[in-house]
Amino acid sequence: MPENFADRLLSAIHLKRSPACVGIDPDYARLPAEIAEHRELNDATDSEAALDAVLEFSRRVIKIVAPYVPAVKINTAFFERFYWEGIEGYYELVQEAAQHNLIVIGDCKRGDVGSTSEMYARSALSDPDFANLDDMVGPDAITVNAWAGLDGVQPFIDVAKDEQKGVFVWVRASNPSAGVIQDAKMEGGLTVAEHLAQQVATWAAGEGLTGRSGYSAVGAVVAAKGKEPTARLRELMPKCLFLMPGYGAQGGTAEDIAAAFKPDGSGALVTASRSVIYAYEDMKYVERFTSEWEKCIEAACKDFVAEINKALQK
Amino acid sequence: MPENFADRLLSAIHLKRSPACVGIDPDYARLPAEIAEHRELNDATDSEAALDAVLEFSRRVIKIVAPYVPAVKINTAFFERFYWEGIEGYYELVQEAAQHNLIVIGDCKRGDVGSTSEMYARSALSDPDFANLDDMVGPDAITVNAWAGLDGVQPFIDVAKDEQKGVFVWVRASNPSAGVIQDAKMEGGLTVAEHLAQQVATWAAGEGLTGRSGYSAVGAVVAAKGKEPTARLRELMPKCLFLMPGYGAQGGTAEDIAAAFKPDGSGALVTASRSVIYAYEDMKYVERFTSEWEKCIEAACKDFVAEINKALQK
Repeated sequence: MPENFADRLLSAIHLKRSPACVGIDPDYARLPAEIAEHRELNDATDSEAALDAVLEFSRRVIKIVAPYVPAVKINTAFFERFYWEGIEGYYELVQEAAQHNLIVIGDCKRGDVGSTSEMYARSALSDPDFANLDDMVGPDAITVNAWAGLDGVQPFIDVAKDEQKGVFVWVRASNPSAGVIQDAKMEGGLTVAEHLAQQVATWAAGEGLTGRSGYSAVGAVVAAKGKEPTARLRELMPKCLFLMPGYGAQGGTAEDIAAAFKPDGSGALVTASRSVIYAYEDMKYVERFTSEWEKCIEAACKDFVAEINKALQK
Repeated sequence: MPENFADRLLSAIHLKRSPACVGIDPDYARLPAEIAEHRELNDATDSEAALDAVLEFSRRVIKIVAPYVPAVKINTAFFERFYWEGIEGYYELVQEAAQHNLIVIGDCKRGDVGSTSEMYARSALSDPDFANLDDMVGPDAITVNAWAGLDGVQPFIDVAKDEQKGVFVWVRASNPSAGVIQDAKMEGGLTVAEHLAQQVATWAAGEGLTGRSGYSAVGAVVAAKGKEPTARLRELMPKCLFLMPGYGAQGGTAEDIAAAFKPDGSGALVTASRSVIYAYEDMKYVERFTSEWEKCIEAACKDFVAEINKALQK
């Protein structure tokens, strides 16, 4: 019997001694010259070559970071961008990451109502049942959008329960304009995000979802943005593990992150994407490794892990 | 120069004399025996055969309804459910529907932040730029999720502007639990959905989006649920065409729908999915046509069009 997702994630964090997660969202335009150039693009629309390069880069990033982090978050948009060929590549990467014993989070923000969410839950979270794909695994967890309330999320929770997987409900975004919706005040004083968080807390407490750790297979995406609001969300969702984007390139600080953790040091998985995977654009690393892009990524990943751990020791 | 999306949609509605749209969300388990059985599924996981059947059914439904309605809404979840093969099938259906001169709406509810939304906008809305797909068109419009506010929606709006396409922002859902989020009251008395609607109204009024008709390429998904709340959303988003699910199988009434239209008879595109595409399960049609499922669908489509037109004449 496989373990509850929250327990598995916490074990992986314990094993790697770090709650850090690398986000894989590779844009062809930013790939290292070594990978992009030998693809010999004929023109801007030679997207098969671009996809090959994106996949090779992603595979190499996964291999580089695997010794240091417990999990990777693969952003489906960057693969969907190459249509069905890209989706096939996304599934290949999920297998690759799983083979490195990484927890794999599919960042797809799916969500709709009723039977439509059932279909998304099957495609985005279940282990594939397509003919001849019997050995293929789906991601360990995905991100979902809860605009339609519990009806829209329940099918994902059902799959999570049946297959010991996880769901992170998107509660708070990292971008500037999200506040117009999410930070707007409700009657009674909560923000819209806090109101949603109250719902998510109830869903997370549902039968059969809580692991030995006390955490639920239903977690929340909570951007690293402000210490106080993060602390309030932490309080509102005691059983939820937080998936925290926004650190590094998007401006989140160590203090923002610390507020997502409980006194015992558990509570969140912090993700960094661009600040790690594009480290070869950062002078700090280029000065040390010149054009050895893989070394830049490895160093940035180690720095990221060290920074997060330092933030939590304060 | 192709026309503004809102103008194109209104022309199509005018031509077919009906603001009715058929939703294509085919579930293998409900397909007519004629199509499902000759696929000879070996077992529940023989999903290549299931996908073939789903695609054949969808093509035939599109052909049946094309003379009666201006638009079809294709629900991506039911194709994603078959992984990359399903996505390829979805694009084939988009081409097929376009060849029937139907306005094609991709119901994908995509939405994230910044560069991720840019990637989704490219994959879900743009005409494909993948190698050897030069002749392929994307859908005319898609549905998007605005949880992250304008930053998350802007990339879709940009593509809509560049390629004369449309975006329907998901403002109000048709399912029972959506109210817990969307009908919750804000400070000042608006519901969360109405607060979002105010934002959408501003986005819709942006430069270069309004057509000759006075409507914007940015519309809203507004479920047919209650006359008063629909009327308020109509008032809050004067430039937005409404895409209205929820009629028929989901319980929306003629009165709910009428509230989305302006006195001149314009303002919304009403969709029905299950009540049309599964009409061969409805005794009302089975009694007339027995097992001739295509005739059941055709009759249900004609009835749907007639009902909507009747609702608008009241």
